[in-house]
Amino acid sequence: MKHLSVTLDDVRAAAERISTYIYETPLLYSAGWSERAGVPVYFKCENLQRTGSFKLRGATNKIRALVDGREGVPGVITASSGNHGQAVAYAAQQAGLPCVVVVPETVIAVKENAILRDGAEVIRCGTTSRERIELAERLAKERGFVFVPPYDDPWIVAGQGTVGLEIVRACPDVGTVIVPIGGGGLTAGTALTVKSSLASRAGSGAASSMTSAASPIAASSMTSNEPSSARRSVAVYAAEPALANDTWQSMRAGRIVEIGPSHTIADGLRSSHPGTFTFPFVQAYVDDVLLVEEADIEGALIDLLENAKLLVEPSGCASVAALARIIAHPGPDWEALKERGPVVCVLSGGNADLGLVAEVVTRRRPSEA
Amino acid sequence: MKHLSVTLDDVRAAAERISTYIYETPLLYSAGWSERAGVPVYFKCENLQRTGSFKLRGATNKIRALVDGREGVPGVITASSGNHGQAVAYAAQQAGLPCVVVVPETVIAVKENAILRDGAEVIRCGTTSRERIELAERLAKERGFVFVPPYDDPWIVAGQGTVGLEIVRACPDVGTVIVPIGGGGLTAGTALTVKSSLASRAGSGAASSMTSAASPIAASSMTSNEPSSARRSVAVYAAEPALANDTWQSMRAGRIVEIGPSHTIADGLRSSHPGTFTFPFVQAYVDDVLLVEEADIEGALIDLLENAKLLVEPSGCASVAALARIIAHPGPDWEALKERGPVVCVLSGGNADLGLVAEVVTRRRPSEA
Repeated sequence: MKHLSVTLDDVRAAAERISTYIYETPLLYSAGWSERAGVPVYFKCENLQRTGSFKLRGATNKIRALVDGREGVPGVITASSGNHGQAVAYAAQQAGLPCVVVVPETVIAVKENAILRDGAEVIRCGTTSRERIELAERLAKERGFVFVPPYDDPWIVAGQGTVGLEIVRACPDVGTVIVPIGGGGLTAGTALTVKSSLASRAGSGAASSMTSAASPIAASSMTSNEPSSARRSVAVYAAEPALANDTWQSMRAGRIVEIGPSHTIADGLRSSHPGTFTFPFVQAYVDDVLLVEEADIEGALIDLLENAKLLVEPSGCASVAALARIIAHPGPDWEALKERGPVVCVLSGGNADLGLVAEVVTRRRPSEA
Repeated sequence: MKHLSVTLDDVRAAAERISTYIYETPLLYSAGWSERAGVPVYFKCENLQRTGSFKLRGATNKIRALVDGREGVPGVITASSGNHGQAVAYAAQQAGLPCVVVVPETVIAVKENAILRDGAEVIRCGTTSRERIELAERLAKERGFVFVPPYDDPWIVAGQGTVGLEIVRACPDVGTVIVPIGGGGLTAGTALTVKSSLASRAGSGAASSMTSAASPIAASSMTSNEPSSARRSVAVYAAEPALANDTWQSMRAGRIVEIGPSHTIADGLRSSHPGTFTFPFVQAYVDDVLLVEEADIEGALIDLLENAKLLVEPSGCASVAALARIIAHPGPDWEALKERGPVVCVLSGGNADLGLVAEVVTRRRPSEA
């Protein structure tokens, strides 16, 4: 665990590097879910992040580091029509760097327009991600542009880890964090950060109790942000669609397992395998992968809209869907969760197609008299 | 202006009285609207308030004052199936007081269930608000319950005014506040608070500049939360549906004008006339009433959902609809707005029927290729 190449210090440096460009998103208390869970439940609202998802954190960290690090980076390139593509386009525009985003031939107009609005060049290519990545890598070589990967990169993981820093700062006694997992960048960064922060707090807490006899005022100011209880443990769960269970399979196999194409409604979580860079972090820091069904995801989407008044895209709903499953199947998981204290569900993004939302609402809600 | 019976001190007392029971809702920056407006635009998210609207502030202030003030209040009663009814039910439950809510025969199940969930007794009665209020007042007399009016009450106005306190604290250099107006409780409270707070700040700012020669450090610490510019003015606009323009007409007539029944989609703003208690505050503190069309409201609803990722009920969208109209018709209003600085649009509630939202989305959004 100590030898993985991203550390808490890297995440702290990322937080400083990106703070001007991203929002510290609100952590909202949910009265309804707290009542159902029997423990306080909060939502970390990355759906309210600029560009509509957490992806901006990693993309900004990577691109600012490039710009600050060596002069003369001529531009950046990526292959994604989704949240990562939008985030790279926006981060590049903020940095004043030319940007190319390779998208599928079948890209919908609203997504292409969002990327164009942020000043990036859009190139349409094929229908598979393999084709797009090949083209992006070739263009990167031709133009001297830097390829910005969606997750398998230390700068990206450190950037996404800033979600974990904000969670721990806003809710120091957090007991459980649930994060939607696709390629694993958000999960790797958040899990490493939450676990390491609370481990070092346990450490500094012990240190400060030792100094407290000599200097009670300093000790008390050192511990003012510490969890009030003596509890030291925190669990991090990854929430994954059962229809795209590559990380769940890989965790059980102890090695990266590749699955076939998935059609889960959670389009941001349709990875065919965990990242080679991110997977060791998931193995080291994630307590379990919780599988969710499509109906759980749709149910969470409607619930978040109707009760929390938040639009969350299907991928971002996986965390709440997983919490709903824990509560619906009372057992040791739920008991342990209640014992550990406050739960934070990361709502990773809000870029839901409104037509799809209207369709889900119309299909699932009982008509009213 | 000085002789109206609710003062800034009453609002401050209300804030203290209700702080345990309500959320300080987030003030969210909108990059998209800031770009369109040419000045920073923020949303005051009362749609994220407990019970889904600002109504909880006034209801809690009224009910806590009853409970704290005299022993033996046997219960409270109101007549509303909407946000006020839910707020009174919740506030009464928190205070441990029996509560009756009189609703129309035609109440939809989801609203009735929300009131029942908060432990109130629901009585169905007729179809007009006149019938319901008569019954509620009769029952109040029979049972010794206190009637909690939706807006025409000093405790209610002071409670709603806490929205203004939070706006001024979070955005001390606010130049324009836009508030949806129905009966006028939120508008009266917010306008009085914003205008009075900034007037007293202008005063303290002047005082601190006078002391600054003698004690520069104290002066600078005194002015640390002051607006950075020398600007002293702030405008408060009320946003009203053109289909329910009772306050607009009343302001022009200089007296309360009653209109016929309205069918605006903004069901919370269908008042037939301004409140007799609230109207003098509106006259004293509101710079103008801005009329919005139904299409403006629907457009704002879709925009807030798609871009801000927030579910806002039609009534709560009137403020953003009014801002859209100012921007769409460039003229002195827009120039003055840009000059005054940051704009805060109050999103007053989020209790939108999802079926209605799906219908608006399906009807208004161009189908995607």
